[in-house]
Amino acid sequence: MLKGTLLVGQSGGPTPVINASLAGVILSAREHAEITGIYGMIHGIEGVLKDELVDLQRESPQIIENLVYTPASALGSCRHKIEDKEYERILEVCREHNVRHFVYIGGNDSMDTCKRISELATSTGYEIQVMGVPKTIDNDLAVTDHSPGYGSAARFLALATRDTGLDLESMATFEDVVILEAMGRNAGWLAAASALAKTTEDEAPHLVYVPELAFDETKFLDAVSRIHARIGRVYVVVCEGVRDANGDFVGTHRMKKTTDAFGHTLSTFTIGVAAYLADLVGDQLHLRARFLRPVLIGRTMSACVSEVDRRESFRVGQGAVKRLAGGETGLMMLLNRISTSPYRCETGAVSLESVANAEKLLPRDFLEDSGVLPNEKFKEYALPLVGEAWQPVARLEKYRIKTGNEL
Amino acid sequence: MLKGTLLVGQSGGPTPVINASLAGVILSAREHAEITGIYGMIHGIEGVLKDELVDLQRESPQIIENLVYTPASALGSCRHKIEDKEYERILEVCREHNVRHFVYIGGNDSMDTCKRISELATSTGYEIQVMGVPKTIDNDLAVTDHSPGYGSAARFLALATRDTGLDLESMATFEDVVILEAMGRNAGWLAAASALAKTTEDEAPHLVYVPELAFDETKFLDAVSRIHARIGRVYVVVCEGVRDANGDFVGTHRMKKTTDAFGHTLSTFTIGVAAYLADLVGDQLHLRARFLRPVLIGRTMSACVSEVDRRESFRVGQGAVKRLAGGETGLMMLLNRISTSPYRCETGAVSLESVANAEKLLPRDFLEDSGVLPNEKFKEYALPLVGEAWQPVARLEKYRIKTGNEL
Repeated sequence: MLKGTLLVGQSGGPTPVINASLAGVILSAREHAEITGIYGMIHGIEGVLKDELVDLQRESPQIIENLVYTPASALGSCRHKIEDKEYERILEVCREHNVRHFVYIGGNDSMDTCKRISELATSTGYEIQVMGVPKTIDNDLAVTDHSPGYGSAARFLALATRDTGLDLESMATFEDVVILEAMGRNAGWLAAASALAKTTEDEAPHLVYVPELAFDETKFLDAVSRIHARIGRVYVVVCEGVRDANGDFVGTHRMKKTTDAFGHTLSTFTIGVAAYLADLVGDQLHLRARFLRPVLIGRTMSACVSEVDRRESFRVGQGAVKRLAGGETGLMMLLNRISTSPYRCETGAVSLESVANAEKLLPRDFLEDSGVLPNEKFKEYALPLVGEAWQPVARLEKYRIKTGNEL
Repeated sequence: MLKGTLLVGQSGGPTPVINASLAGVILSAREHAEITGIYGMIHGIEGVLKDELVDLQRESPQIIENLVYTPASALGSCRHKIEDKEYERILEVCREHNVRHFVYIGGNDSMDTCKRISELATSTGYEIQVMGVPKTIDNDLAVTDHSPGYGSAARFLALATRDTGLDLESMATFEDVVILEAMGRNAGWLAAASALAKTTEDEAPHLVYVPELAFDETKFLDAVSRIHARIGRVYVVVCEGVRDANGDFVGTHRMKKTTDAFGHTLSTFTIGVAAYLADLVGDQLHLRARFLRPVLIGRTMSACVSEVDRRESFRVGQGAVKRLAGGETGLMMLLNRISTSPYRCETGAVSLESVANAEKLLPRDFLEDSGVLPNEKFKEYALPLVGEAWQPVARLEKYRIKTGNEL
């Protein structure tokens, strides 16, 4: 491996376990004498551009240990879209600090950043090894079986849906419809995870809308009506990124002209698709609908982390440094599933070209024919990722007592 | 104690531990030979009015054990406002089933129901013992030190705020303001709980708005501006029930006339106060604001239960039956704090008159002078209720590396 500084950063939306990857990188880097410094980027590539770096070698063992249990990006993250001319500045800062190992923990945009840095270094003759470490709750990274971060966010959604589904059931004489908004951008992996704790048809969720299929308001209202008529309640999960047949985000055509008495404008992006649909259900079907919008809670909740996910996140960080030590470069770490039952998964790596800017969407055959519920195939894929079995909930048998008239 | 059937029901909004109280009632009732049947109301008093009762004696030990870990109301709940003439129907159904013990698990409305049933029974000469069991995440029941259900909902809010606060900090170059909506109706107990994991001034939350104090939009925008100027991010928690100086729910004066291009009306009640304020911050301060609205998630999340709360919920259920066995009636169970450090709490009871329809609000001296953050006195009160210490999070020391220019 090259001798010099290792520079590590975090990019994009956080996950509950992205810091476990960081801890894996730091602890593993400390084992290699060729790594003469372990530097961190403050707010990812923005910190490199501003030459705002920190010395991770000096962080205490206790802090590194707690990192494994700390949600969100401890170094700070960013969503900076790098301009072409900025790549030279990045290399300049790397040169100044003798950075020979560049590790970036992020999603598909970040893998593109890694690829471009790697290419530019090669073309300018500066020797640097580059390694991408995957993370995204959206699970939309290509090639890898799944992305670190997904299992924990999926666990949160599965449990939140189960538990609030019981709440709706409790209150079914008072409330009719609950609409939960899931993150996931263009991919339905997270929305689908809401069904992982569902065991019967009548349990929540009843309808799951993913962005891979065009959303149709009329069909949606019909489905809600039908289920409500059957069981008196409807639990809907909708991905934030659902679009209609024209490719427009759901609700934007109605909401974009919305202004209040003061000329104040409301956008659907601010209120979210679940709020829009809850309002629609109330207005069109005259049902009492409520929307839940956990957003950031779903991507950070430390109390809902999947231990499988935490361990794998640590291992991809650790593995990245092992590969650097072996002289490798230009790769993204990944997870290869060896078997589903029992679940076994190994780390691997793939060229940055194969993953940069690619997006892996939820396959159609992970959904039932109806398109509005994930199927057993999806559950088989996702269940091992969400960690240990959850505490089962009780359903009373409800043995009916004869009424006064029958006695 | 009277010999006959014990009838138990659940009312109002669920909590993550309301079923622990139910399990306490059932298990304790099974120990008394005078209790000849243990019946449950389907959807609370609505089930009594419709004579829809179930035999809880027949439920398996496994189901009762799992009940302790099952969020939401397993028997079904209701928000039925009982009309005067319906009380006679309730007594009629009780007579038909020889109900001699009436146990209602609920909030202040439910205690009023208990009180009226008790009074009517006395006036008509039907002998029945009535016992209320407290539950509410809002913590607004009078006399009791705190209400079962509050500790768990408070734990969720404390952790959700801490974790998403770290998310905002991570993303502070991309996002400015997060606004989390807390439940709690007219009481600020839950909103205040969002600060329980806060250890420094700069950690989330920065501003907490409770309904006990009038909300002023201008002051709110000023405070957000000021904090943003200082640290580049602002985390706001707002109780769903905040009102302005006129007593109107915040945002209603602006939103009630809102219609979209199709004449479709949006109400602030549908979208919630956090959505309204996030929009206001974007519009007036040109900051990027996002709102989080967990609603039902906060009152059910089984992964965030306070074990102290779970145990106390079980004990108030158990205690209600013990008191019935001792011949008592017309009481609500409560929790008496013996000491805060170490935390010790005993069950007790109080007359239904003292609690029916009473509302215990957050005292002014549980808030800092500013009125926008809870103080140490509140934390001392609330911390023992949220259960075991949470896993600490790491904050990197961030030892700065000299820049290229400084080297």
